[in-house]
Amino acid sequence: MLDYGEKYRGRSVLITGGMGFIGSNLARRLVEIGQVEVILVDAILPDQGGNLFNINGIEDRLRLHICHLGDVQAIRHLVAGVDYIFNLAGSTSHIDSMNDPHRDLELNCAAQLTLLEACRHFNPRAKIVFTSTRQVYGKPVYLPVDERHRIAPPDINGIHELAAEYYHLLYHRIYGLRAVVLRLTNVYGPRQMIHHNRQSFIAWFIRQAIDGGVIELFGEGRQRRDLNYVEDVVEALLLAGASEEAEGEIFNLGSDNPVSLAKLAAELIDLAGAGTIRSVPFPPERQMIDIGNFYASYRKIEEMLDWRPHTPLRVGLARTIDYYRTYREHYWYGNQGSISRSEATAPGDRD
Amino acid sequence: MLDYGEKYRGRSVLITGGMGFIGSNLARRLVEIGQVEVILVDAILPDQGGNLFNINGIEDRLRLHICHLGDVQAIRHLVAGVDYIFNLAGSTSHIDSMNDPHRDLELNCAAQLTLLEACRHFNPRAKIVFTSTRQVYGKPVYLPVDERHRIAPPDINGIHELAAEYYHLLYHRIYGLRAVVLRLTNVYGPRQMIHHNRQSFIAWFIRQAIDGGVIELFGEGRQRRDLNYVEDVVEALLLAGASEEAEGEIFNLGSDNPVSLAKLAAELIDLAGAGTIRSVPFPPERQMIDIGNFYASYRKIEEMLDWRPHTPLRVGLARTIDYYRTYREHYWYGNQGSISRSEATAPGDRD
Repeated sequence: MLDYGEKYRGRSVLITGGMGFIGSNLARRLVEIGQVEVILVDAILPDQGGNLFNINGIEDRLRLHICHLGDVQAIRHLVAGVDYIFNLAGSTSHIDSMNDPHRDLELNCAAQLTLLEACRHFNPRAKIVFTSTRQVYGKPVYLPVDERHRIAPPDINGIHELAAEYYHLLYHRIYGLRAVVLRLTNVYGPRQMIHHNRQSFIAWFIRQAIDGGVIELFGEGRQRRDLNYVEDVVEALLLAGASEEAEGEIFNLGSDNPVSLAKLAAELIDLAGAGTIRSVPFPPERQMIDIGNFYASYRKIEEMLDWRPHTPLRVGLARTIDYYRTYREHYWYGNQGSISRSEATAPGDRD
Repeated sequence: MLDYGEKYRGRSVLITGGMGFIGSNLARRLVEIGQVEVILVDAILPDQGGNLFNINGIEDRLRLHICHLGDVQAIRHLVAGVDYIFNLAGSTSHIDSMNDPHRDLELNCAAQLTLLEACRHFNPRAKIVFTSTRQVYGKPVYLPVDERHRIAPPDINGIHELAAEYYHLLYHRIYGLRAVVLRLTNVYGPRQMIHHNRQSFIAWFIRQAIDGGVIELFGEGRQRRDLNYVEDVVEALLLAGASEEAEGEIFNLGSDNPVSLAKLAAELIDLAGAGTIRSVPFPPERQMIDIGNFYASYRKIEEMLDWRPHTPLRVGLARTIDYYRTYREHYWYGNQGSISRSEATAPGDRD
């Protein structure tokens, strides 16, 4: 695998959605690489992933701007002069997008256009890594799903993520922006929003296991999914950012061993030593947008960028449980937390 | 072909973008069918297709609401209770969309969500016919392009039209809205916006021929395109609206005889008895989004709805030239015209 550290040392990196789950883990990794100017921008919107505690322990080694991606003047200022942009901001909730499609449009389309227009006019040479989602494929017609699989977004969020992908590739083709798109599958790990169940079923399962609660499985949990530990995703982001060959390309992430939700739940209960499973009928609003089994092929990024996931599921889940047990208070009740400088960095988080 | 007249008599029909090119021709046809309550909504935005003169002669037989599709309260009010919605509003300019992507997002995505949300909550049984564009296919990988052709929108406008298609089909699938999507190819005929060249190359060619001006052909005009006369498109809209089988489907329109732009220009000069042709190099901003040859297969709508184009190109072009010669003053200088009740309806327009 490319030693990408050299590509980032002495350079400046802007992370949109930088206080969120993946953004803050990426920021930690960049701080660890060292000599990287790390700039986070995040609106810290209620019920989105931004959480002030996510940068606990590294807050003196980065710059944080709390603003909306749709704030044209601020975004122009932030974009100008940076070398890399990891564009992770946006809403990822399928249910929220169906309840308020205009808000999803604002967060996932209008904001992305503001960022790309700022790049086009004020920093056309920046490298941009955009994270999209497997949701754009909809219900698979074959497995594993590769990048040539037909597109069929099953909800408003998927439609808007797809539009945002197209924006990035269009600005690459027309204006030469150095954009690359990663389609993430289910990501889990420390620093994920875990206080409601509208964004990630895994995070919610983890919470139930830790709390000794009930993990509800729709349709007996037979659906199989591929999971990526967040550190593996961060590696993919940094490899994509470091590669010129990746520009203009779309890459799936994925894992080798898709797991049924029932098995995932059982694993979590075993690791946490708590929690129970209950099978429930699919709620209608979930059934309508459920995609059945899904797992992606990551062969393309493996071949082009030499990326593959390294963290075994059980190891990743154990670390995740450990993290939330230690920092429970910062994740259980919403994202209105404050930075506590007296607390240590999470044990086991990056080891 | 289905005698669709019975489906519309005694019913109410809302046309968004009703003062525009296709909308006003559709309104005329509905007035001609008779006993149809025709309601037009149009913001009559500068440089879009809305033109007050387009309803000249029928203004007493319909209701006109001048408002934005994004005006939530007004749209809810208009949507509630109608039987059919022909959803034709939106911007179709590729160049404008690249210059101001946020405005294109507003006109083509946010406004569509407002309309669909209004339908979902206040009139879920209305039939909705949405007009999209062949632009969603991008540069063809085979010809003629059928509905299974891969999607690759070449510009911001194409990305947003695609999103709007997905919205309609999603609301059909999830909420049971009776939506159908038509992908139009190049449409020409009376009442098209013809005062600038950013929306339709055909309209611009026609204007040059009538004015004895110069028709500029990029790359010698070898690109072949399929053209539909607006009355044929109106027939397709009405058939799609009348068919239950069409709900949830996407249909291409198209024609049997794709024509090169050079041949089209020569035909127009011959018919108008004026104008000259000049080959010029592709301007870079056009070259970047040019799609080469394009013509669509309309077999699906032919088989399901028994639609085919009936107007020979030369006949349609002659009628079009005749119309603009008669009403030149209302189309040459923008869309800020007023309704002149003393003028007759266009001769030859619907015969």
